[in-house]
Amino acid sequence: MSFAENSGIKKLVASITKSYAELPTLIKIEGADLINKESILKILEQLQGLIFAGFFTKTPLRVDYIEYYVGEVLEALTFNLQTQIAQAFLHTEPVHTNPKEAAQSTTLEFLEKIPKLREILLTDVEAAYDGDPAAFNKDEIILSYPGIYAITVNRLAHELYLLKVPLIPRMMTEHAHSLTGIDIHPGASIGHHFFIDHGTGIVIGETTIIGNFVKIYQGVTLGALSTRGGRLLDGVKRHPTIEDHVTIYSGASILGGSTVIGESVVIGSNAFITKSIPEKTKVSVKNTDLQLLSDKKPAQEVLQDEFWDYVI
Amino acid sequence: MSFAENSGIKKLVASITKSYAELPTLIKIEGADLINKESILKILEQLQGLIFAGFFTKTPLRVDYIEYYVGEVLEALTFNLQTQIAQAFLHTEPVHTNPKEAAQSTTLEFLEKIPKLREILLTDVEAAYDGDPAAFNKDEIILSYPGIYAITVNRLAHELYLLKVPLIPRMMTEHAHSLTGIDIHPGASIGHHFFIDHGTGIVIGETTIIGNFVKIYQGVTLGALSTRGGRLLDGVKRHPTIEDHVTIYSGASILGGSTVIGESVVIGSNAFITKSIPEKTKVSVKNTDLQLLSDKKPAQEVLQDEFWDYVI
Amino acid sequence: MSFAENSGIKKLVASITKSYAELPTLIKIEGADLINKESILKILEQLQGLIFAGFFTKTPLRVDYIEYYVGEVLEALTFNLQTQIAQAFLHTEPVHTNPKEAAQSTTLEFLEKIPKLREILLTDVEAAYDGDPAAFNKDEIILSYPGIYAITVNRLAHELYLLKVPLIPRMMTEHAHSLTGIDIHPGASIGHHFFIDHGTGIVIGETTIIGNFVKIYQGVTLGALSTRGGRLLDGVKRHPTIEDHVTIYSGASILGGSTVIGESVVIGSNAFITKSIPEKTKVSVKNTDLQLLSDKKPAQEVLQDEFWDYVI
Repeated sequence: MSFAENSGIKKLVASITKSYAELPTLIKIEGADLINKESILKILEQLQGLIFAGFFTKTPLRVDYIEYYVGEVLEALTFNLQTQIAQAFLHTEPVHTNPKEAAQSTTLEFLEKIPKLREILLTDVEAAYDGDPAAFNKDEIILSYPGIYAITVNRLAHELYLLKVPLIPRMMTEHAHSLTGIDIHPGASIGHHFFIDHGTGIVIGETTIIGNFVKIYQGVTLGALSTRGGRLLDGVKRHPTIEDHVTIYSGASILGGSTVIGESVVIGSNAFITKSIPEKTKVSVKNTDLQLLSDKKPAQEVLQDEFWDYVI
Repeated sequence: MSFAENSGIKKLVASITKSYAELPTLIKIEGADLINKESILKILEQLQGLIFAGFFTKTPLRVDYIEYYVGEVLEALTFNLQTQIAQAFLHTEPVHTNPKEAAQSTTLEFLEKIPKLREILLTDVEAAYDGDPAAFNKDEIILSYPGIYAITVNRLAHELYLLKVPLIPRMMTEHAHSLTGIDIHPGASIGHHFFIDHGTGIVIGETTIIGNFVKIYQGVTLGALSTRGGRLLDGVKRHPTIEDHVTIYSGASILGGSTVIGESVVIGSNAFITKSIPEKTKVSVKNTDLQLLSDKKPAQEVLQDEFWDYVI
Repeated sequence: MSFAENSGIKKLVASITKSYAELPTLIKIEGADLINKESILKILEQLQGLIFAGFFTKTPLRVDYIEYYVGEVLEALTFNLQTQIAQAFLHTEPVHTNPKEAAQSTTLEFLEKIPKLREILLTDVEAAYDGDPAAFNKDEIILSYPGIYAITVNRLAHELYLLKVPLIPRMMTEHAHSLTGIDIHPGASIGHHFFIDHGTGIVIGETTIIGNFVKIYQGVTLGALSTRGGRLLDGVKRHPTIEDHVTIYSGASILGGSTVIGESVVIGSNAFITKSIPEKTKVSVKNTDLQLLSDKKPAQEVLQDEFWDYVI
């Protein structure tokens, strides 16, 4: 009960306080410009509740009260979002002359995109339903598919990113990353009917451009060739362009800002690609890359030839 | 304080309400058939508390009170589970004539499997202990190993799946997926002494069949060759069969419903397999697949020959 | 409302209680030696609040009150940590003669390392900022980068591991694993300026040794060649040594206790390495491992030659 008597504690307090003074990067004094993580998560929850209305509420949504439901969610959401965006704007260079006002108009501009976002998210739900024979129905997809959650958060964060709100978009996508294992940078631009299957381990970099009807499996990286240029590369297109109707199987890595994966290309599992692929091509690790060790000879034919029979 | 005055908000409410009317798939009105996600998570917690009794409770379990503990947990659990299963049964085709009654008997049938499930989960804990030199003791495995959590949830969800409960099994396994990065479909059938090491990124598809004493590392996919058939493939065996005593190292992908990995096969990291492998075989990416770039010549021998000395 | 009437419930209680008696491994009676998971998570939160002061609090930190803040956090933290460490010490062999006292001195010894840990964590934040052109500023890295959270928890857990506290370190790192997909065993020894980019699917084994300025991407495994020796391998160096300035791209697996990756080596994506690599070397899967299937001939040159132009 009386740890304060412990002679060690006083020394401890002093040494930690001293460490605060010495390493100011790791401490946030006053915190005038601090974004509150809990508020950001609340905002995400409210946005999800607006977009997929009635799916995540405890009490059922009544048809006669929908307008009131929307109004009520919007009131709390608008207040939270304005507050956090105003804090975020204190980080911009040059700082807004009136960050509160800028936050107010930015919040409204963002919320006006919700009907448009619902339209495109519907195409994502449809792509998941059409693409996954294991899906029971569309309710199941909305209620439980991590890919739908990740793309929902990403499409929201991307709009904030376009409105030049700092910090908040990345906090949102990193929350989705934590829940789903899917790491999509808010900067990535993604077309309609986007289907992420399973998703764990997917990385999609900031300057990636993805077309329509694209399907991506778990463990796929759309990344940069190298970041040895470090901060000098800020703003440069470092990540690939994926055209319409491309399918990328699990574990493939596609790197580089000038790498373009052409329309209707199919990329096989675990491929490592750093140059452009012409449209309507299939790319695979060679079917000679495996060996059976019981008979000490290559066994290419037996192992992989069926793959393309299926996907062609 | 007075956002309602904001002229923009009224337009916003109207446009979002209009969007609800236009895209009914994304809205759940009345929600008569809605499963509550929070209740499902509570049910999982209660089931975990029944199976690994005393491990996750704040107050210690007293030996004289165990029966009361079980009774108390069961009362709440039974009520929650019946309620949610009844909701889920509203999604079945044809709808049960009396979903409440069907839910009651299904709940009981499910709960009666708990002693049997504890027996098989004990073999999973033993497999983890025997297979992982880093394990301190079996308590540590039960308290902290994500693989044990994932297989616990999967074995529970699989029983509900066999009882033809819709939606709930997948919501359960997707929760485990979110916490562990391990995505096992409730349909997958898995033998005893199953050991998942690390586990992040593992995907095991709906029609996978796994034998006994199987060991699977992080990033392994047991998947479908292609889902281009889309919804037509519903019900078809699309995922592989893994026989007894198979070990699959990190990042390997094994695809296809007619792919059978024979008894005691060992599959090396990052292999991509789409055809059956005969029993007692070892499969590896060829040891010529790497190159050192300092001397511009292949360096196959130096890089991988030790692997099989160890695992053979 | 009256499930107790349900004749099935009584049988259920009896069969589950019987199962408890038959499988004692899965039940924790009395729980004298039980670690409370919730308390461990609280402790982690308190430690994060001490290290990155002011970043994760709801109310801003005032400069005049910092010492009181530290004292207050420390009081609760010290109490929680002592209690849990004392419980953990009941698992050691031989058991401490006075586990409570041992826990008290161990807790103090651990907390005294916080200033030193803040110094090394600052180098990790700097490495992330220098290495990632997508980073907005260092606040964003502290607030949202999963790699920073994972390495923070790991550096804390590693100190407890060195102080021979059982169970707790692994529970801590498995919590970070759950949130980030990054699985670093508390035993791993890691130098300064360590940068994990994205991170999902990373596995770093117990006896891994990592030098300074090392950069690791998502999906990388630093693992054991085989654990067929099972529990006999406890204490043996089973995982690789990574020297200073090494970069390991996504999905590469490096296995084995005598595998040493020399200074300044760069390992390409999806490489599978089980032998030592000499310093200043680049290792890649061969650029002949891909084929385009539209024209039925290998297409090695077109696909990968740019990679090394960038990273060399």
